[in-house]
Amino acid sequence: MPKEVFKATAVLQEGLKVDVQARNFHLTIDEPPTLGGTDAGMNPVELVLGALGACQSIVAKSYAKKFEVELDDFRVELEGDLDTDGFMNKSDVRRGYSDIRYTFYIKTSSPKENVEALIDFLEKTCPVGDTIANPVNVAREKIVIE
Amino acid sequence: MPKEVFKATAVLQEGLKVDVQARNFHLTIDEPPTLGGTDAGMNPVELVLGALGACQSIVAKSYAKKFEVELDDFRVELEGDLDTDGFMNKSDVRRGYSDIRYTFYIKTSSPKENVEALIDFLEKTCPVGDTIANPVNVAREKIVIE
Repeated sequence: MPKEVFKATAVLQEGLKVDVQARNFHLTIDEPPTLGGTDAGMNPVELVLGALGACQSIVAKSYAKKFEVELDDFRVELEGDLDTDGFMNKSDVRRGYSDIRYTFYIKTSSPKENVEALIDFLEKTCPVGDTIANPVNVAREKIVIE
Repeated sequence: MPKEVFKATAVLQEGLKVDVQARNFHLTIDEPPTLGGTDAGMNPVELVLGALGACQSIVAKSYAKKFEVELDDFRVELEGDLDTDGFMNKSDVRRGYSDIRYTFYIKTSSPKENVEALIDFLEKTCPVGDTIANPVNVAREKIVIE
């Protein structure tokens, strides 16, 4: 497949709630009360970690056979450091994540070397991992006042 | 607030489905059939766009009053270019997004200059925007074989 264009829409609701849409799918994003919301869903920076873990899981499953790995269970636990003083506009720190770490928990009877080869491959192949780790051209097209 | 640690977990289900968890929230991620899944939810790269749009929406709402902007309606439409040959391991192209573009649709009676000032501020303040546009230290802690 050549270059594809993926799309999503975010629609602000009451308070800080947001309805996120992609194709026919919807999900509700919000902030916890400590960040001004009503806690109706995970927040955007948690969603970024979730997208990374989901992407890693999908690459692992897609390529497990190629590396001769049986995945009886597979999960990723992720965490990221973010100084919320940036979002609060209280300091000049970086606004986003500085560091993201993750651990893979894998139930398998396959050889450890195969598992490690799959994980090394996965880290090079995961689209969300590349998107977060490396610079992306992020740009506004326009503002439409309706 | 000082530096905070945000967390999420991704748990592989049947096929390419993934249960993404953050605190008490869950969502289902999958791929469309063209990418090997059963289309039970948005996919990880759509989720990244959605996280960006949600974050922009939340920053807009949080700071609208400061910039004297009434937001009667606010939505962001986002798209990103990604060459799926990378994920398919068919070519040496970049695995993630090269470019992400977005347009703001705003229903407001506030002056255009105020709206533009809010949007300029939003783009500098959005944690997910910074996370995607700029490099992040993304690193494995370990592999635990259970």
